[in-house]
Amino acid sequence: MQSRTQAAHRPSTRFLSPEDVALIIARTGIAKCLAGMAAYIHQDFLRWNAFDKRARVAHHSPVGVIELMPVADERCYAFKYVNGHPRNFRCDLPTVMAFGVLADVDTGMPELVMELTLTTALRTAAMSAVAARALARADSTTMALIGNGAQSEFQALAFHHLLGIEEFHLFDTDRSATEKLMRNLRGAGVRSKRCASARDAVRGVDIVTTVTADKTNATILTRDMIEPGVHVNAVGGDCPGKTELHADVLRMARVFVEYEPQSRLEGDIQQLPADFPVTELWQVLAGNAAGRVDAAQVTVFDSVGFAVEDYSALRFMRDMADDLGISASISLIPRLADPKDLFGFIRERAGNMRPRAQTARVAVSLAP
Amino acid sequence: MQSRTQAAHRPSTRFLSPEDVALIIARTGIAKCLAGMAAYIHQDFLRWNAFDKRARVAHHSPVGVIELMPVADERCYAFKYVNGHPRNFRCDLPTVMAFGVLADVDTGMPELVMELTLTTALRTAAMSAVAARALARADSTTMALIGNGAQSEFQALAFHHLLGIEEFHLFDTDRSATEKLMRNLRGAGVRSKRCASARDAVRGVDIVTTVTADKTNATILTRDMIEPGVHVNAVGGDCPGKTELHADVLRMARVFVEYEPQSRLEGDIQQLPADFPVTELWQVLAGNAAGRVDAAQVTVFDSVGFAVEDYSALRFMRDMADDLGISASISLIPRLADPKDLFGFIRERAGNMRPRAQTARVAVSLAP
Repeated sequence: MQSRTQAAHRPSTRFLSPEDVALIIARTGIAKCLAGMAAYIHQDFLRWNAFDKRARVAHHSPVGVIELMPVADERCYAFKYVNGHPRNFRCDLPTVMAFGVLADVDTGMPELVMELTLTTALRTAAMSAVAARALARADSTTMALIGNGAQSEFQALAFHHLLGIEEFHLFDTDRSATEKLMRNLRGAGVRSKRCASARDAVRGVDIVTTVTADKTNATILTRDMIEPGVHVNAVGGDCPGKTELHADVLRMARVFVEYEPQSRLEGDIQQLPADFPVTELWQVLAGNAAGRVDAAQVTVFDSVGFAVEDYSALRFMRDMADDLGISASISLIPRLADPKDLFGFIRERAGNMRPRAQTARVAVSLAP
Repeated sequence: MQSRTQAAHRPSTRFLSPEDVALIIARTGIAKCLAGMAAYIHQDFLRWNAFDKRARVAHHSPVGVIELMPVADERCYAFKYVNGHPRNFRCDLPTVMAFGVLADVDTGMPELVMELTLTTALRTAAMSAVAARALARADSTTMALIGNGAQSEFQALAFHHLLGIEEFHLFDTDRSATEKLMRNLRGAGVRSKRCASARDAVRGVDIVTTVTADKTNATILTRDMIEPGVHVNAVGGDCPGKTELHADVLRMARVFVEYEPQSRLEGDIQQLPADFPVTELWQVLAGNAAGRVDAAQVTVFDSVGFAVEDYSALRFMRDMADDLGISASISLIPRLADPKDLFGFIRERAGNMRPRAQTARVAVSLAP
């Protein structure tokens, strides 16, 4: 680990921990963070064709999934590591954990390593709000929030601050999750009520957000639960075999996705044929495609989370850290006196470095 | 950054820096490290079918490549980030820089983040030696080493310690690189001489190793330079558009690869039709396929570097660090009192955390 002063003299990798990100959010205010994150995402979606994009690379096991999500533009390469393990709460770990990296395309140098667990919750909520601003009715004031786990506060606050939603109808199969959400929303200037079922929660609302964790083909919403004019923000169906909407809900709606090749594999539309019509959201933001066309239409944002959003999130948090003077670094890449003399780095340490371990001197066993 | 004692009480991520890895190598001795690394790789190659494998995911730019290399078995997920930027020496950065992660398949928790720049040089050399033990003539004593950059010492020492090579014929277009290599090999118990050309270097040797950096379709070796019985260890042709051998060298030889789907894209065999016969090395190690069949045969190990090798390398270095008591951790994943209350982590920091930056108190701007 290095101090800030050393870091200035070497090709160092900046590091932001969850504590750093929590501090950024606490000091900046979550409303401003959500608005800033949404602005970065919106701007990057307008630069859609500047990115080298691909569907994320997933490793599935019986209990979860681990994914790598790379993306790059001309200057900057970004990737996120993220898992999804619905049963993690049993061992006191979050369902979704993430970290990410920004690197320089011109040298390959990893310039930032940072936590993305908190940041992903923030960016997913900001993404949902960016989509809803384009797709929900402008007069929306109420939202059902189904799934009251780790991401739910961020969703509620994003829709409150960025769309003016005042009233939340909450449902979760785990009653204590809903109670936690209500506690956390106290003082946020919103009304929230616990509902007895998903059906209860969606009755009469303008927007329905589903953000559930089960890795199954669930049917949180069926066609008869969907009222005219509703916008559905479907966040939790984001993995092969993990869906939230009955296929009829998709069939009755105009469906918007982030990146079609990935969403065909992972989104709720995985239930439908490959030619089921969807619109990439960036086309709506850029004015190339229609969003909502009338007040009675049902719109669905079939969100799975795409690498461009993490590119935006990494850059946003880095810039916020800059503004607040939050900075630390880790030693990830060796600093070489001669870049062709990697071996010399070992020799040098053999001579100069004191061991961190308890006893031994540095042995001269390097002599091959 | 956390201390070791704190780390015991939270889901911490272990961290190994280049300084840590240099210390491990210095204290253990490079001969023992190469032998240990080779043993881990060999063992994992015998478990080939236990791994979920895929070709790595590459982002190409005009000046280099950035790759992610994931792999997993039932228990452990590993990935490596690695770049290749031949012109990096101009800004005093290594051509190849890397780091990697080990994670728990059952929870997705990233358990280790570590440097892989030094470690990749070590693992690539160990991999070359594992292949050569199976493919080179058992009486081999001399090796040409073409390309005397950052990886060359590791290659020379691996072939010395694991195959008994005593004499090295060196060539590089950059004379100072060869001089650096000769300096670093002093005291290693080997003979080395600088040659005027690649053709000079390969004359009369038993093994030819090419480990050059140019991202071009180069022709380091042509058919007329290859003598009967030679084993060619082709390390540097590892990327689309980056090759070292004339196609005729491949056509005259039995060709062995790591993972065929990746090598077809990246190896020297990218120059040949998709049905050109190759053998995956693990089949030879497992006794399922023949390696060298007679003393006059030419064998080529068309190495590109595969994720299973990094899985082996990460585990080897972690185990070595354990043995030496080298241990530090980074705070990468938030520790939550309630795994469904991610938002609470921000509230908590707003109350408890002192800012790392120079002036401000923690503002209570979290109140949404």
